[in-house]
Amino acid sequence: MTERSPLAPSGFPDLPAIPGVTPRVARARYKQWDRCDLTYVELAPGTSVAGVLTQSKCPSPEVEWCRKALVLGQARALVVNAGNSNAFTGNRGRAAVEAIAARTAAHLGCEPSDVFISSTGVIGVPLPVDKAEAGLDAAFAAETCSWEDAAATIMTTDTFAKAASTQAVIGGKTVNLVGIIKGSGMIAPDMATMLGYVFTDAAVAPEFLQAALNAANAHSFSCITVDGDTSTSDTVLAFATGAAGNAPLSDADDEGADAFAAALGDLCRQLAHLVVRDGEGATKFIAVTVEGAESDRSAHRIAMSIANSPLVKTAVAGEDANWGRVVMAVGKAGEPAERDRLSICFGATQVAKDGLAVEGYDEAPVTAHLKGQDVEIGVDLGLGDGRATVWTCDLTHGYISINADYRS
Amino acid sequence: MTERSPLAPSGFPDLPAIPGVTPRVARARYKQWDRCDLTYVELAPGTSVAGVLTQSKCPSPEVEWCRKALVLGQARALVVNAGNSNAFTGNRGRAAVEAIAARTAAHLGCEPSDVFISSTGVIGVPLPVDKAEAGLDAAFAAETCSWEDAAATIMTTDTFAKAASTQAVIGGKTVNLVGIIKGSGMIAPDMATMLGYVFTDAAVAPEFLQAALNAANAHSFSCITVDGDTSTSDTVLAFATGAAGNAPLSDADDEGADAFAAALGDLCRQLAHLVVRDGEGATKFIAVTVEGAESDRSAHRIAMSIANSPLVKTAVAGEDANWGRVVMAVGKAGEPAERDRLSICFGATQVAKDGLAVEGYDEAPVTAHLKGQDVEIGVDLGLGDGRATVWTCDLTHGYISINADYRS
Repeated sequence: MTERSPLAPSGFPDLPAIPGVTPRVARARYKQWDRCDLTYVELAPGTSVAGVLTQSKCPSPEVEWCRKALVLGQARALVVNAGNSNAFTGNRGRAAVEAIAARTAAHLGCEPSDVFISSTGVIGVPLPVDKAEAGLDAAFAAETCSWEDAAATIMTTDTFAKAASTQAVIGGKTVNLVGIIKGSGMIAPDMATMLGYVFTDAAVAPEFLQAALNAANAHSFSCITVDGDTSTSDTVLAFATGAAGNAPLSDADDEGADAFAAALGDLCRQLAHLVVRDGEGATKFIAVTVEGAESDRSAHRIAMSIANSPLVKTAVAGEDANWGRVVMAVGKAGEPAERDRLSICFGATQVAKDGLAVEGYDEAPVTAHLKGQDVEIGVDLGLGDGRATVWTCDLTHGYISINADYRS
Repeated sequence: MTERSPLAPSGFPDLPAIPGVTPRVARARYKQWDRCDLTYVELAPGTSVAGVLTQSKCPSPEVEWCRKALVLGQARALVVNAGNSNAFTGNRGRAAVEAIAARTAAHLGCEPSDVFISSTGVIGVPLPVDKAEAGLDAAFAAETCSWEDAAATIMTTDTFAKAASTQAVIGGKTVNLVGIIKGSGMIAPDMATMLGYVFTDAAVAPEFLQAALNAANAHSFSCITVDGDTSTSDTVLAFATGAAGNAPLSDADDEGADAFAAALGDLCRQLAHLVVRDGEGATKFIAVTVEGAESDRSAHRIAMSIANSPLVKTAVAGEDANWGRVVMAVGKAGEPAERDRLSICFGATQVAKDGLAVEGYDEAPVTAHLKGQDVEIGVDLGLGDGRATVWTCDLTHGYISINADYRS
């Protein structure tokens, strides 16, 4: 076990129960470990679902299953397997997914397409169906568990259990949103995988839930990077049980739709930040903001070029205000930029302006800022109104140790 | 000083003199060091020049100068400053470049646009004109130096001097090509910068020299990566003095044009490999070959996605046949790929085929292959005829130490 990330929050948050959502955990023993590794969440009839899935051209069969099932927009259960991603396993992997869906559907008396499935862990080993089925049966018979148990059970090499919550008021009804997420720790030869699940008692039609999730994703999960490597299994699903009894949201113009979308966006951003805070080897949480780009999309690409640059990330690890590396990363992004309009800040201090170092800038606040755990890099391109913020962590010996200093 | 890279060749190669090319070196003392840091290469009248320059949107004024001068196709001198890249220095940086060109042109009695200039080192500090001029005057008065001296003088934090040579026969005349290059070492807060120079006594018209250099570049410098970070100053220039007396090459159909282009391609590939062999912290030289892609361009992008993946590079550092990470890198490349047609080899051993692990493959040769210094990763997408090979190095604690474990 690696040590808890130095960027982890002080403890697990207090989270409300979500009516219509019943989590249970069990030991499927996908690996030789003595911990729960199968999460089973029962969802009340009528629960809407939306999802965003990896763009990988080599997705796991779980991702393909969810992509198909999402079209129908209804969910009765979520099953998450930890310790084996079941990716790149051909027909045997697909059969395992179908077996899990069938057994769960039989238990609940629902359609297999109402069952959403994720797996995370080693690539290339088919998920053992016998272990999955025995684990499921144990979960069906288990007591309801806490959110902390569920968040801990979906972990692989994460160093802390990750969850967050928020609320929104829809037509006078207060609805709760809770999310759990795993990702970014890796001390076995597995793929870094991000799995996130949001649960709410709000009544939300699937189409609007999907639209709100897409918007939230664009400013949260799509704005984080640890090492630029994209998993075969990344999955975020949002489930809305409707138990709060609000007038169902089906359109962005409905009363409370804005509030719900904002709450979902806030929750997703909290969850995304937790993944970065558990980034492999991370010692600094870095926010990169690019302004003055030709478009928001262009700003996002430049911000990602900075956030993925190993030279920028090692400079932050070394607490070095090496803004030349930021210039480099802007220059390589392939997006419109003019060297002689470029300005760069570390924290609140401008260190380069109009294509030149700011002569005699005060180094003390920059040094102090870089010594902290939260580092802000700001770039103004001076071209237009495009703006984006992305989040990453530094690149340290810890990352190398986790990913190179062992043999599979 | 870091130790010589474990991937370095055993010594500096024997290189022929190139008639019409006269290198000299001097101490401009751009940094507080006691070594030559200014390289001055005089070129005979009538020398053709071609070049490829960084795509960075934040290029150095040297790069902008070369881009303009290349249009004219003629060269009389090359000046390379080591220890200061002069990038992101505004008008003062531009003035320094103009001063170097003017002083050299006055010395030779040529046009300033006949003088090609590069600088490499720290970003954001204007090149001191007084040091450059004094260094130039010393170089003008210096004895001719060896290729090894020239190759050593353009280094910044490289761990060994890099050069290569080859020959071609054009219409019965043997021509020589010599190249020197620097790049990929970095132990000061500088930008990793690749500068390469090729000299030949062949008579080659500038347009054809440029076409041949573009083709060579596409299969050499454009196919290497250490960390995916692109310099503000990358420059490769080819100079052809014509002293060999061959019938000048001006078209791909000319006799000997194929041989010359092949020799130039071979030389550029040798030079590119030397840069990877001096990659920061490198302990393994990795060749990634992608076949069966929809196009060569698609194959190149997928190969680069693999070669830039920190998870693949750390797996090789750990001598771990973690082909799941190769699947991941194929999947994230955004290029056409079908998981269930994908095959992967380490060395000569196929470890995954048709979207599945090869059951019971012999691990002994894979382990032996990964323990060596030269590692080959092969991917067959099974879609078309597209093919590409790129070269990179592993990602180790050495990279972090070089780039994070110091303060500027």
